[in-house]
Amino acid sequence: MRSIVLESRPYGIPTAENFGLREIERPELTDGNVLVRMEWFSVDPYLRGRMNDVKSYVPPFAIGESISSGGIGVVVASKSERIKEGDRVLGHFRWQEFDVQPGGSLTVLPVSEVPYQYYLGALGMPGLTAYVGLFDIGSFQEGQVVFVSGAAGAVGSLVGQIAKAKGGYVIGSAGTEAKVRRLKELGFDAAFCYANLSPRQALDSLAPDGIDLYFDNVGGEHLEAAIQSLRPFSVAVLCGSIASYHATEPVPGPANFTGAVISKRLRVQGFIVSDHSDRQDSFRLEMSKWISNGAVVVDETIVEGFSSLPEAFIGLFRGDNLGKMLVRVES
Amino acid sequence: MRSIVLESRPYGIPTAENFGLREIERPELTDGNVLVRMEWFSVDPYLRGRMNDVKSYVPPFAIGESISSGGIGVVVASKSERIKEGDRVLGHFRWQEFDVQPGGSLTVLPVSEVPYQYYLGALGMPGLTAYVGLFDIGSFQEGQVVFVSGAAGAVGSLVGQIAKAKGGYVIGSAGTEAKVRRLKELGFDAAFCYANLSPRQALDSLAPDGIDLYFDNVGGEHLEAAIQSLRPFSVAVLCGSIASYHATEPVPGPANFTGAVISKRLRVQGFIVSDHSDRQDSFRLEMSKWISNGAVVVDETIVEGFSSLPEAFIGLFRGDNLGKMLVRVES
Repeated sequence: MRSIVLESRPYGIPTAENFGLREIERPELTDGNVLVRMEWFSVDPYLRGRMNDVKSYVPPFAIGESISSGGIGVVVASKSERIKEGDRVLGHFRWQEFDVQPGGSLTVLPVSEVPYQYYLGALGMPGLTAYVGLFDIGSFQEGQVVFVSGAAGAVGSLVGQIAKAKGGYVIGSAGTEAKVRRLKELGFDAAFCYANLSPRQALDSLAPDGIDLYFDNVGGEHLEAAIQSLRPFSVAVLCGSIASYHATEPVPGPANFTGAVISKRLRVQGFIVSDHSDRQDSFRLEMSKWISNGAVVVDETIVEGFSSLPEAFIGLFRGDNLGKMLVRVES
Repeated sequence: MRSIVLESRPYGIPTAENFGLREIERPELTDGNVLVRMEWFSVDPYLRGRMNDVKSYVPPFAIGESISSGGIGVVVASKSERIKEGDRVLGHFRWQEFDVQPGGSLTVLPVSEVPYQYYLGALGMPGLTAYVGLFDIGSFQEGQVVFVSGAAGAVGSLVGQIAKAKGGYVIGSAGTEAKVRRLKELGFDAAFCYANLSPRQALDSLAPDGIDLYFDNVGGEHLEAAIQSLRPFSVAVLCGSIASYHATEPVPGPANFTGAVISKRLRVQGFIVSDHSDRQDSFRLEMSKWISNGAVVVDETIVEGFSSLPEAFIGLFRGDNLGKMLVRVES
């Protein structure tokens, strides 16, 4: 079977040369574990951080070993009491056509009306990220003006739609005019393309009275502009900074930061979704409702074929994806 | 009587030319008001912000009009029911030898064992700032490593001593070696002079395992270094940025800010003491106790004479003060 390994550590933006496709033996099934034939892989910006050889909240990938990410597959053999052959399981898997993982690390997906891969997106980690960031970190309240950057991405698209569903006024930014049109179809009150308009100019015109909450997926100029537009006692939620994940030099911070944060009594807070698994149940319940009543429309960009995994991942940094970027293993 | 007005708006660091000394009529006493002969004025870094013609949390001073700040004086005549001749009152006063203010805006100071001017410092606004910043914004807990910048100043000196009194390990920075020696006399566990050692180098050596709370009075390089040293789930309290108050160009933000704030789930929060007057009572009670039992030693730098007000104020930005900078009106 095939496996994709980290061939070399990327310097700056990852390239195809950083990845290697290997033929390896199918792993052996041992006690307590299950053998899974992979159907879906999630590619996520945070994986870029794990490709650097630096200590972070997750350990780095090793050179020559499989990369791993969220995935879904079907159980072809099980030596775990919890899980049986034929189950669809969600977990963290090596980039291989088959993987063996402990039964205890996997979630058996219910047979439901939603496609399984939603559990890698709107009903999965990106969905919980949007939910926790907006409500728990951002203290979002009905009637607030929310600005979300990278709004056409997996998390941003959900942040905006949830905030709309809960009575917010939502402004989004995206990297292309086509994405901006899509944001308006999804119900965003306003949206702009940051390739054509700076966040500073956009916020001055779209939110002349300021914003109440900034949900940051981008960092850089976006954060600087948002800090200047935030109203007194408001919040910037730092979730991602896709522009800086492949930085090779120190990334400048937002100018005039301290003065603005003090005089407006701002709170700027970072978070990581894995600290918030206690919110999983209420999130799934609410998100399922929003999906079924149409309040949240799920956008996906599906790339076909196992060997496309590196290309799909690299595409995240070019903004190739509308909504959640997924790889279907067998097309 | 004499009055000190804002002659022109400072560009960068204020100079003597920005201030004017005028002879004016003593103000007339009208109903509800009291006439106060001034004894003490507080000079504070935040006044620099009010000298710019920009909207902030307090309106700017007008050109040709009296500057005003915290002060203490003795009531020489009263048309307020609340206040009687001879009372010592604390309030916000124009820089004049006499001022008339509404009785309702003044606090009558108790006759006590502490010098009256403590109510402009350790028992006043700077004290409450230290208290609220450490406990309410910073969520300080016993056993934590606290780093406070500008630690020999009015607020910083109290932050460090309170944190020590409550079981913290305290590191302070100051602008001269003499101040560093004073911090050690005050019980700081470690201190460094940022004129001789960068905050980054200092924290690497004094707090190799990181810090739990950063109390920022300085901004700039200090904030950047602190962000890198903060441990996961910890807090940076932004209270002041004396280095940037007279900036004439955009002040660069802390480099690599977003990545650190997200991966370490940091909270960075600004505050202004005037939002926290509900904490006044518990603060006064605790601080009085710390002063009387010696846990907090009050440092003051007293400049003599009404006409020295501009020079005392300008001296704040040269770091002339150890502890609270005060002007005694009549020497």
